[in-house]
Amino acid sequence: MTQVASTPERQIPAGTSVRDDDSAVVNVDALSQALLGKWGDVRLQARALAATEALHTPAGLPYTEHRERVMTQMKILADSKAVHRAFPAYVGGEDNHGGNVAGFDELVVADPSLQIKAGVQWGLFGGAVMHLGTREHHEKWLPGIMSLEIPGCFAMTETGHGSDVASIATTAEYDAGTEEFIINTPFRAAWKDYIGNAAVHGRAAVVFAHLITAGIDHGVHAFYVDLRNDNGFLPGIGGEDDGVKGGLNGIDNGRLHFTNVRIPRTNLLNRYGDVAADGTYTSPIESPGRRFFTMIGTLVQGRVSLDGAAVAASKLALKTAIQYGTERRQFNGASDITEEVLMDYQQHQRRLLPRLATTYAAAFAHEELLQKFDDVFSGAHDTDEDRQDLETLAAGLKSLSTWHALDTLQEAREATGGAGFLAENRLTALRADLDIYVTFEGDNTVLLQLVAKRLLADYAKEFVGADFGVLARYAVGQATDRTMHRTGLRQIVQAFADTGSEKKSAIALRDPRTQRDLLTDRVGTMVAEVAGALREARRLPKDKGAAVFNNNQHDLIEAARAHSELLQWEAFTRALEQIEDDGTRQVMTWVRDLFGLCLIEKNLSWYLMHGRLSSQRARTLGPYINRLLAKIRPHALDLVDAFGYGPEHLRASVASGAEKVRQDEAMEYQRLMRASGASPVDEKILIQRKKQAAKAKR
Amino acid sequence: MTQVASTPERQIPAGTSVRDDDSAVVNVDALSQALLGKWGDVRLQARALAATEALHTPAGLPYTEHRERVMTQMKILADSKAVHRAFPAYVGGEDNHGGNVAGFDELVVADPSLQIKAGVQWGLFGGAVMHLGTREHHEKWLPGIMSLEIPGCFAMTETGHGSDVASIATTAEYDAGTEEFIINTPFRAAWKDYIGNAAVHGRAAVVFAHLITAGIDHGVHAFYVDLRNDNGFLPGIGGEDDGVKGGLNGIDNGRLHFTNVRIPRTNLLNRYGDVAADGTYTSPIESPGRRFFTMIGTLVQGRVSLDGAAVAASKLALKTAIQYGTERRQFNGASDITEEVLMDYQQHQRRLLPRLATTYAAAFAHEELLQKFDDVFSGAHDTDEDRQDLETLAAGLKSLSTWHALDTLQEAREATGGAGFLAENRLTALRADLDIYVTFEGDNTVLLQLVAKRLLADYAKEFVGADFGVLARYAVGQATDRTMHRTGLRQIVQAFADTGSEKKSAIALRDPRTQRDLLTDRVGTMVAEVAGALREARRLPKDKGAAVFNNNQHDLIEAARAHSELLQWEAFTRALEQIEDDGTRQVMTWVRDLFGLCLIEKNLSWYLMHGRLSSQRARTLGPYINRLLAKIRPHALDLVDAFGYGPEHLRASVASGAEKVRQDEAMEYQRLMRASGASPVDEKILIQRKKQAAKAKR
Repeated sequence: MTQVASTPERQIPAGTSVRDDDSAVVNVDALSQALLGKWGDVRLQARALAATEALHTPAGLPYTEHRERVMTQMKILADSKAVHRAFPAYVGGEDNHGGNVAGFDELVVADPSLQIKAGVQWGLFGGAVMHLGTREHHEKWLPGIMSLEIPGCFAMTETGHGSDVASIATTAEYDAGTEEFIINTPFRAAWKDYIGNAAVHGRAAVVFAHLITAGIDHGVHAFYVDLRNDNGFLPGIGGEDDGVKGGLNGIDNGRLHFTNVRIPRTNLLNRYGDVAADGTYTSPIESPGRRFFTMIGTLVQGRVSLDGAAVAASKLALKTAIQYGTERRQFNGASDITEEVLMDYQQHQRRLLPRLATTYAAAFAHEELLQKFDDVFSGAHDTDEDRQDLETLAAGLKSLSTWHALDTLQEAREATGGAGFLAENRLTALRADLDIYVTFEGDNTVLLQLVAKRLLADYAKEFVGADFGVLARYAVGQATDRTMHRTGLRQIVQAFADTGSEKKSAIALRDPRTQRDLLTDRVGTMVAEVAGALREARRLPKDKGAAVFNNNQHDLIEAARAHSELLQWEAFTRALEQIEDDGTRQVMTWVRDLFGLCLIEKNLSWYLMHGRLSSQRARTLGPYINRLLAKIRPHALDLVDAFGYGPEHLRASVASGAEKVRQDEAMEYQRLMRASGASPVDEKILIQRKKQAAKAKR
Repeated sequence: MTQVASTPERQIPAGTSVRDDDSAVVNVDALSQALLGKWGDVRLQARALAATEALHTPAGLPYTEHRERVMTQMKILADSKAVHRAFPAYVGGEDNHGGNVAGFDELVVADPSLQIKAGVQWGLFGGAVMHLGTREHHEKWLPGIMSLEIPGCFAMTETGHGSDVASIATTAEYDAGTEEFIINTPFRAAWKDYIGNAAVHGRAAVVFAHLITAGIDHGVHAFYVDLRNDNGFLPGIGGEDDGVKGGLNGIDNGRLHFTNVRIPRTNLLNRYGDVAADGTYTSPIESPGRRFFTMIGTLVQGRVSLDGAAVAASKLALKTAIQYGTERRQFNGASDITEEVLMDYQQHQRRLLPRLATTYAAAFAHEELLQKFDDVFSGAHDTDEDRQDLETLAAGLKSLSTWHALDTLQEAREATGGAGFLAENRLTALRADLDIYVTFEGDNTVLLQLVAKRLLADYAKEFVGADFGVLARYAVGQATDRTMHRTGLRQIVQAFADTGSEKKSAIALRDPRTQRDLLTDRVGTMVAEVAGALREARRLPKDKGAAVFNNNQHDLIEAARAHSELLQWEAFTRALEQIEDDGTRQVMTWVRDLFGLCLIEKNLSWYLMHGRLSSQRARTLGPYINRLLAKIRPHALDLVDAFGYGPEHLRASVASGAEKVRQDEAMEYQRLMRASGASPVDEKILIQRKKQAAKAKR
């Protein structure tokens, strides 16, 4: 690759090699260790398990067989105690929430169907009994759930309502006469839908329903309901198979309906709300709204897990595509001794390296999320605010990382061409399976709106009563992160106005403070702008106010996205500070810069329109990114090797080195042909010779 | 939806309703007719055929069964003469090239596997015999190919080389002693790969190989080779099954290898190059390079077809998602009598309506491509330049439309939530099948580079010898479209400098001349900039020159993309001029504006950095787009109905109206509950009442 110092081209800012050590080398083992994080041992155990053939599924298995195969694999997970870490010690668990999710993350490497079926059984079904039930429930049901004696369902979503849990229509009405709840799904839209384990395997379910007693609807609560015995559904219960899906066909999703199904009063998972024998409702949380959000909040683990799974899948995709990209030669017919491989092409770098940088950012952010999650659920830091922070963080990061995984898997597929389309390289199946991750456990678009609402609320708290005109001129540190210093817009503009040359401008762009300031400023300004628009809405009648809100929905979502991207950038930067090896830190700094600058490039029009960057400065950004790509290129393989996935995890023939073997064989054949004089002469060369001969005659 | 005139909000430019008729109504039938285009009758026939159940495939069929089912369906296509239109009349065809592709486009509606298997058999295999062979070959093989008596392969791609056909390694060496060619795939990378019909059904193949005679390699030619009889592969031939793929599992893709396989001399498809019995090579095209491109050029039909198929699939996706979006209610728990459905949300409009606009643009552009294709292949307009134009157009449009189809199918999947993930709604299967469209018949990234090379060549032709400094200040009309007027950058900047108000700015943005100028200017400037950078490269040694080219690869590809998007915009604008109904033209003008302005928004940073739009002007763009979305929203259903696909084509339960039935049932239930007084009281309301009562006491 060209080096800046030796080719001072117009589009490459000069002088950037002053501080950079172009001979930097990545310490792959150390970087690998850094990525493993706090629960590295659990991750390694889980990866070893995920590498065993019994947990893999051959491509093309009919879905009915895939379902049974995954059910068998579930038993292996249960028997190897790979999925019990979160449960209370008094039922045989370890009370280890962070480690549990770290291990779960890695199951995607075996088969996403197995991961999600495990998530349904032990994360959602078991998790609901654990978090929403009390000790009696735990001792009664958790052992059977953990051993898989009771395969179960998490029956929350309805055909009519997915992400909007408060609006579900299933009812559980208390009958004091028999001390029972009567469960009903009163119309078709109220049927539970897309429920894992519902079509075939589920013996029981945690059913979410409006708790009604003494004529009062106390909102959504969770109930333990037996579904099936050996002869099929119990009386009053029915269902349908959701059939084949776009992916995750190892899971038997289905629909469930309930008609006057009676369950004992004590089957109410009563941690946050209980009904006495006489029908009296009590709850430790007075406000029905807060009670609802507390109950729902215990389910955040699903989002945390999906975030981790998405990161793991992105790593698999990039290791596969980048390995192939360093072996595959293309369009080298004219000079078949050239060393150029796909990864040497600028466009190939543009396609894969920014996604590699984002994957690192998402990985470091996931590790922070995991620690926050563990802090809350272990009780170490478990205030209301901690829980809110966790929910906001999980919602934002899960949205970004699951979309990123789909994007990365697709780009890896395209970057490996026709080979990428073959099941033997796994990219298409992983993408098909992960597709649903972007809308389940909360539709990403809805989740980003939750993040945005939090940003607005924090904004309002800090500037209550202040004049909007003043507010709009300040970035809102509160809205982004408490640990961050406030940044007036004025300051940033100033920083750029001060730099008089392209060189200084490029140095400014790679300065982490500049990146942070630009990213922070954008979040703050966007939130302030939307908040200003919404202030007017409060004075309007309800329907017109809703219209104003709707007119700002897109900007609101973009603000939430920008906020979550900033959090990823900060996690990356904090992780960078922990790297002790100089070479590794140097290369990873380029990767972090690539991540940050690609974010700025993506939203460059915003920075220009808002006067944060001048046109002249902005024009140095693209070339500087291209320069970074060339700097990172020699380290690409190290950077994906540090992910720590071997052939037993990748199971992709294009990542196996087979391409290099083929290339070597072809070159050796051509060398021998030339050496033996058996090669035919190319007609084109013959014509050239004739022309030259004719010219010589004249 | 809010109307501009009545809610003059800060972000909506005032006064834009002056010329607009907000009461415009779409004439769905007329628009439908316009979309059907020149070969509308063929399209309708093909759609009727595609609607028959025998041509559908139930989800979840094991791939081996899917393959056999599609083979049976192929026989139905052959028997119904649905796929013979392009073949010469003297073998029972119609010499109708445009109509043939129009009919082929619609097969994707039945099953993409069927479409592509038909494409392999009649488009590629049969097409190669037709275009590269001569009448003797036609009469000998085409009848069997047309009737499916000879299922065949198009054996061009090798494991080692896909899009780079000139570099394939298979050889066909002439043996004058026996008057035979000897076919060899000399090493593993030379095996033919991803070949449809190769794994199971292929009885013969057109094999692409370097023709070698008398020690000279005359470049890649096509040979007709028998592959199998009832007992399997013929001597010297072997292969492998490519196995399960990410999609298109109704096709038996596989690998083929040849070891000293002898075929008669007359099996060379000899239209563009022949070998006499004594081994003498002759060709009507002297230049080997031009000969190669002429032969390869006959295969452009594949790209034209994929463009049409991608458009059809995008239409299915949008009809499905928008139908559902007009029925589905969400987050309406607080006010369950509200009329709001998903499509009323700004973000939902942002997700679906720009893609709807792009689909219209792609559809009109495809129709123009089809007519160009027919002009060339019917011989009506068949100059070298016509062929080059056709190839450039096909490469650019196929790239845009196939990526667009994947993007649209995914967005439709997400916009229909969990339902979209079920096979019963077809979105995931269509996406999985169409995935490979973006890299086959030419990898899109490679195709855009072909487009870019053409732009550079045209640019060089026009400005040969001119000073670069002068060139860079002009847009290059030549590089975009001959029919377009030249636009100096100065003019455009001026146009915006002249408008003194937001109102005028918004009017300027929706003026088609402004859109055209901005889009044209960008293409021209980008081409000129890259050309300038590459001029330097010509003076450098070969390896350094290659490095300069590589440093500009990304910009080059972006220029090609911008060029192809402009062609779509122009096709849309020309189609608009043909619409006679006022209401339809009004609404379609909004849709065209949405397409054009979203392109400008996507590249807004470019326009700002290059001084084509001021920051202030640029800031009106987003709000104006939001305003357009709200204007188009009431017509969304009409616009997708005009695509002309009924339930028999969609076969998606979410597009069936089932959602509305469920919503109505739920509302009726709630109405009855309220009426009967059986509804429980919401605890929240109870608390409110208590508070009010307490307040009243005080």
